[in-house]
Amino acid sequence: SGGPDSLTLLHLLRQLCGADWLAAAHVQHGLRPSAQAEADFVRETATSWHIPFVEMQVDVAELARQTGMTVEEAGRHARYRFFAQAARQFGAEAVAVGHNADDQAETVLMNLLRGSGLAGLGGMRPVGRVPGAEELVLLRPLLHTSRADIEAYCVAHQLQPRHDESNRDTSYFRNRIRHQLLPSLAAFNPQIKPHLGQLAQVVQADYDLLQQLFQAQWPDLLAGQGEGWLALRRGAWRELPVSWQRLALRQAVLAVRPSQTEIGFRSIEQARELALQDSSGMQAHLPGDVTLTVGYKRLIFALPDTAVPLDAPQISRRVPLPVPGLVDLSGGWALETAVVTKPDLQAIKNNPDPWTAYIDADAAGSLFVRPRQPGERMQPLGLDGRSAKLKDVMINRKMARELRPSWPIVANEEHTVWLVGQQIDERVRVTAVSQNIWQMRCYRQK
Amino acid sequence: SGGPDSLTLLHLLRQLCGADWLAAAHVQHGLRPSAQAEADFVRETATSWHIPFVEMQVDVAELARQTGMTVEEAGRHARYRFFAQAARQFGAEAVAVGHNADDQAETVLMNLLRGSGLAGLGGMRPVGRVPGAEELVLLRPLLHTSRADIEAYCVAHQLQPRHDESNRDTSYFRNRIRHQLLPSLAAFNPQIKPHLGQLAQVVQADYDLLQQLFQAQWPDLLAGQGEGWLALRRGAWRELPVSWQRLALRQAVLAVRPSQTEIGFRSIEQARELALQDSSGMQAHLPGDVTLTVGYKRLIFALPDTAVPLDAPQISRRVPLPVPGLVDLSGGWALETAVVTKPDLQAIKNNPDPWTAYIDADAAGSLFVRPRQPGERMQPLGLDGRSAKLKDVMINRKMARELRPSWPIVANEEHTVWLVGQQIDERVRVTAVSQNIWQMRCYRQK
Repeated sequence: SGGPDSLTLLHLLRQLCGADWLAAAHVQHGLRPSAQAEADFVRETATSWHIPFVEMQVDVAELARQTGMTVEEAGRHARYRFFAQAARQFGAEAVAVGHNADDQAETVLMNLLRGSGLAGLGGMRPVGRVPGAEELVLLRPLLHTSRADIEAYCVAHQLQPRHDESNRDTSYFRNRIRHQLLPSLAAFNPQIKPHLGQLAQVVQADYDLLQQLFQAQWPDLLAGQGEGWLALRRGAWRELPVSWQRLALRQAVLAVRPSQTEIGFRSIEQARELALQDSSGMQAHLPGDVTLTVGYKRLIFALPDTAVPLDAPQISRRVPLPVPGLVDLSGGWALETAVVTKPDLQAIKNNPDPWTAYIDADAAGSLFVRPRQPGERMQPLGLDGRSAKLKDVMINRKMARELRPSWPIVANEEHTVWLVGQQIDERVRVTAVSQNIWQMRCYRQK
Repeated sequence: SGGPDSLTLLHLLRQLCGADWLAAAHVQHGLRPSAQAEADFVRETATSWHIPFVEMQVDVAELARQTGMTVEEAGRHARYRFFAQAARQFGAEAVAVGHNADDQAETVLMNLLRGSGLAGLGGMRPVGRVPGAEELVLLRPLLHTSRADIEAYCVAHQLQPRHDESNRDTSYFRNRIRHQLLPSLAAFNPQIKPHLGQLAQVVQADYDLLQQLFQAQWPDLLAGQGEGWLALRRGAWRELPVSWQRLALRQAVLAVRPSQTEIGFRSIEQARELALQDSSGMQAHLPGDVTLTVGYKRLIFALPDTAVPLDAPQISRRVPLPVPGLVDLSGGWALETAVVTKPDLQAIKNNPDPWTAYIDADAAGSLFVRPRQPGERMQPLGLDGRSAKLKDVMINRKMARELRPSWPIVANEEHTVWLVGQQIDERVRVTAVSQNIWQMRCYRQK
């Protein structure tokens, strides 16, 4: 940019490896009135140092409008795409950028304030991969050098960076962190900047190790993957330690939406709590428009409008449900009924399996299984006989929108009996005076 | 303390499990003028609720003076010791304390400012062990409840806590965090407190998992342990990922100094860098007065004045060193010499093993091995023939003080030849014109 960081970086790299091994790439953001003068300065500097120079002009504000990204995100995307393109043009294997230790402290603090968890507290890496061009190495040689040292270097080597302008490149939030928050934290601990840098180093090593050990679990965890979707084995996922449960959710989101850079831990945590529940069919919303649908044996992550293999029972028409008997639902699912001859009332009351239901046969009468009907109401167990729209019950239980219309309902001629896998109706519940008890069980046959 | 937190805690526990299962313990810190009125209030409240009550008076300022701890640390130690004692007196299995979500946010921030790494960012645990009484469970039932909710609970249940006084219990630093820093962070993100709490939860899970996986490595890592010391296998330690290298150093410090609560990552990092070097005999200082001495095959952690089995060569008198030949040093060490018949100059120049040295035989002459002499000087290789006191060379190389007086020196009649395992003298170095070359090797025989 012609600022102290990139100028120092270019000067140092020229000292270390010579102009022949370098090319300079400059992005003109089109946001600032002085952008042209800046570009001219960088071009003149590079030329006078015999370093090939490429530049790109991008209207970041317009790009942000088009893509729905923030101006900062849009600028970042455009920059790295151009850097990758420039690197390929020159046959380079690596892209070096000028982030310094102060930038790192600011990034760690910003991520802390945004609540982005360990991944964010690790800040920027000294060596990584260019986003969107993973074959290119991304280097940050100045990441452990303070801004003050970089400015001293400029003075010592008579470099005259374009000073005031480069600051405006950063977002308003980052500027407030830099000019207000960090100075006020320094009143509590003058070493706050190096501390934040060291914290980033520690967290990077810890996070890398957790990630690396986690990767060994991933193949066993993965149940399937396709265009815009991915499924994890729910049982295997539940057996993981909490830390890896979170990593798995994060990795799944990134697998279906690789461009997603920020995944806050609040959304991960909400998804995790949902996926830990016994019930199925619920849906959670994750960053990047990724939905998590909790299937019978799978956790399914998908982009909007993706055709995902369903992992839940579905039915399209009404069929009689004999007792005892078995009805085939679509997708290999079955609904099986039986007469309970020796009921254990305590076990029935504490039944932990939502896919098995016990009902009072005399209250139930002849049964059918069918999709829900428009405006249908039920009296969910435990609401003291109050009734609710089946649609609202489904929404309250966070059941996936696309599963709701064909979700199997067991009913008699008068009313709902069982919202399969979810909830029985108060009117058919087993009580101490029940004479005849039926068991219903829904499961996938293969 | 009679403050909102402990009063709410006692009230809630009484509702949940009844007075018969509880006992209240109050520490009178003797720091505040109103301490007696506070103790009276707690006693009266407990008595009116039919809960047995014990109290202890402790002069925390005096205790801090005696032990060298800060007032805050001393108070903490005294409190938990008393709680453990009270728990045993009543046959209790757990101690519950009133820390709330605001306390947690403050703790995380304080630890962030102090630079205490992942262990500190995890903050307080909802369920843990009483410090110094590991058989007792320590519970923090209010850790996810905000201070505002606790105060609302007090109002709703007509509890009248002793308000103003309880705040002074906290250190000045915590008060500044509470009243200045957190409000200013809230201007950047109104959700900062819940964010910090969630961060703590995430970090706890990640750190627990890293710890748990690390514990499987520990037995292989441990080389020996005694009163006030512990040794790790240096080779095995170096093979660990960075994250576990840090955990191992932390665990070693805690093993020899269990009372150490804060281990900053800067000291861990300095020790780690020292232990990664090829040389031996160096010493690093860790928190709690623990020294790390880098031995030949061991990393030795010890308290001051601890008799530790040395893992470095030592010699007490001058003996001739024949070439070729072998001299036994104490502790199973040997110094072996040989004539190099087909010298590979490049390999000699790049020799990575500090325990093997090559010298110009004609420059060396007849050799001895002995302890250093008072005021002895050498010309360390690579300093362009400048000379330095052997004592200063040893100090600069951070060699352990107790090892220095008996560290073996190879010398001829005129001057130092080799500070064994560390540095050869410029005057005996091998050059392109060397005619005769000797090899010296120091190693442990068993």
